[in-house]
Amino acid sequence: MGNETFLKACRGEATDYTPVWLMRQAGRYMKEYMAIKEKHSFLEMCRTPELACEVTMQPINAFELDAAIIFADILLPLEGMGIKLEFAKNMGPVITNPVRSRADIDAIRVIDPEEDVPYLLEAIKLVKKELNGKVPLIGFAGAPFTLASYIIEGGGSKNYVHTKSLIFSDPEYWHKLLAKITELTGLYLNAQIDAGAQVVQIFDSWAGCLGPDDYREFVLPYTKKVIESVNGRVPVINFSTSTGTYLEILKEAGGDVMGVDWKVRLDEAWERIGFDKGIQGNLDPTTLFGPVPEMKKRVKEILGQANGRPGHIFNLGHGIILGTPVDNVRALVDAVHEYSQR
Amino acid sequence: MGNETFLKACRGEATDYTPVWLMRQAGRYMKEYMAIKEKHSFLEMCRTPELACEVTMQPINAFELDAAIIFADILLPLEGMGIKLEFAKNMGPVITNPVRSRADIDAIRVIDPEEDVPYLLEAIKLVKKELNGKVPLIGFAGAPFTLASYIIEGGGSKNYVHTKSLIFSDPEYWHKLLAKITELTGLYLNAQIDAGAQVVQIFDSWAGCLGPDDYREFVLPYTKKVIESVNGRVPVINFSTSTGTYLEILKEAGGDVMGVDWKVRLDEAWERIGFDKGIQGNLDPTTLFGPVPEMKKRVKEILGQANGRPGHIFNLGHGIILGTPVDNVRALVDAVHEYSQR
Repeated sequence: MGNETFLKACRGEATDYTPVWLMRQAGRYMKEYMAIKEKHSFLEMCRTPELACEVTMQPINAFELDAAIIFADILLPLEGMGIKLEFAKNMGPVITNPVRSRADIDAIRVIDPEEDVPYLLEAIKLVKKELNGKVPLIGFAGAPFTLASYIIEGGGSKNYVHTKSLIFSDPEYWHKLLAKITELTGLYLNAQIDAGAQVVQIFDSWAGCLGPDDYREFVLPYTKKVIESVNGRVPVINFSTSTGTYLEILKEAGGDVMGVDWKVRLDEAWERIGFDKGIQGNLDPTTLFGPVPEMKKRVKEILGQANGRPGHIFNLGHGIILGTPVDNVRALVDAVHEYSQR
Repeated sequence: MGNETFLKACRGEATDYTPVWLMRQAGRYMKEYMAIKEKHSFLEMCRTPELACEVTMQPINAFELDAAIIFADILLPLEGMGIKLEFAKNMGPVITNPVRSRADIDAIRVIDPEEDVPYLLEAIKLVKKELNGKVPLIGFAGAPFTLASYIIEGGGSKNYVHTKSLIFSDPEYWHKLLAKITELTGLYLNAQIDAGAQVVQIFDSWAGCLGPDDYREFVLPYTKKVIESVNGRVPVINFSTSTGTYLEILKEAGGDVMGVDWKVRLDEAWERIGFDKGIQGNLDPTTLFGPVPEMKKRVKEILGQANGRPGHIFNLGHGIILGTPVDNVRALVDAVHEYSQR
């Protein structure tokens, strides 16, 4: 029972108001999160179901959000794949044995989620119990390109030189690598669904470093296959950033809902994607720094662009930024609900 | 007369082949550059006309480029503006007194180029003498938004929180700041033209962090005014990155040639911009890492998209990346010439 607004919107059904959740809604901008973060590393938090559950619930308890998203990371499959991941203090993820050669690609293991990420599946079960139907739970995975570029670059990157060099110099092994990642990502998402995830989101956060032709040839077939592997069991949100110049191609990868950033107006984006799909977005996350009246004006504009059409899920165009005032997050969530009452 | 191909293309006139130059064509990928860089800081190189001239000429002597671009930096006006700039070793630019308050904005001086950047104007004169008409010389400046975001953030930024916070919280002073920067940028460009620059390029490298509506309201009027201040004395190239979702709006800012990155196909970009303007671009700079046959294939594709139409200037979609093999740069320049012979 509970609040089904988000699920309905994912299926393109009419809702009483526009549902809202926020990427990185569990995070360092909340003091409750920092209290746990002070005692545990990020990976410890991910790998301890009780902690992951607690952190997942924090924003649900603090704000009137319409969905929870499991506290996890797109890089959690790496350990099972045989890739060494560390989160250095105050740094992003660092991979000490980045994938650079054919031998490295051959050595990657396709994970068995029950064996390799049992803590994640357990955390999902715990959260589901804790939520007790209050709002739906979202599971997620990195899209094949984003996961591949992470393990090739060994961390964040500015120019993706190693990733693109592999694409340009050894397309055969690029395809081999992506096929492997696609297979394991399918297993990873389905295991989350088995454990109780009611929607899954694919994060292709780095796809925007590619031009449209490269996306179509080297990325699209794999994102598509990952989405197909969910096989309609739950709705899929296909999210990426800086890809607004080729939304028409992204759409071909599938997904019930397309997540878009703020570099394109929501009305234009939806029209280009087509109203047969839902849309998620697309407030500039810096807007949350205030002032609140300006933020609310922008919330109203985005809702106006969506025009009350079924299938709009309100979100930011990217994750909440460190330092965002908690009160503004509350004001945002409430404003979406208030302005979208039908 | 020398090689006028680039100037003709800037004016939309037919040429015997497609001219090519490369953003950051003078830089750390060349050993001749590193030989100077080892003995002098980046700012020393900019501020010593003989060194700036030497470095400007290095790629002209090494490759068959169709234009030179003065060795300088978009941040050179800062000192005259009263803003302290340092290039820390192995780091980007760092501003020790970033602009954050109304008082900071009021304190900014409108530079007098003859007084504040005499070394740049002298370097332009030296290069013109050295070039002796071989190829035209490009001058450049940051666009008002990019310069403003640099001095507000105090360096590079991921989310531009301070810049956007100023826009959202104090639009009156944002406009005041941009008006001031617009005025001084106009003086800065015209002084470069007086000294001998035959084309100028405006770099709005960071505009892509904004959505289309914010660009139109808070940026466009100023870029437009800067371009108008050149008053048709020389052709203007209006370059930005990650702005492919609103090329139609960028075009309103003006410029004879629009510079585009590789997130959009050149044929689509040109059609959206309109064939009344020239287009510059748009090879993915990582392509230069090779293999060369793949790079050449992509050169051919871009030339095919331009379809021999007058007004195409071949370039990368962004600057040459550190570590790019010099031989591949030569192969690129030669391939553009070979494939575009008419």
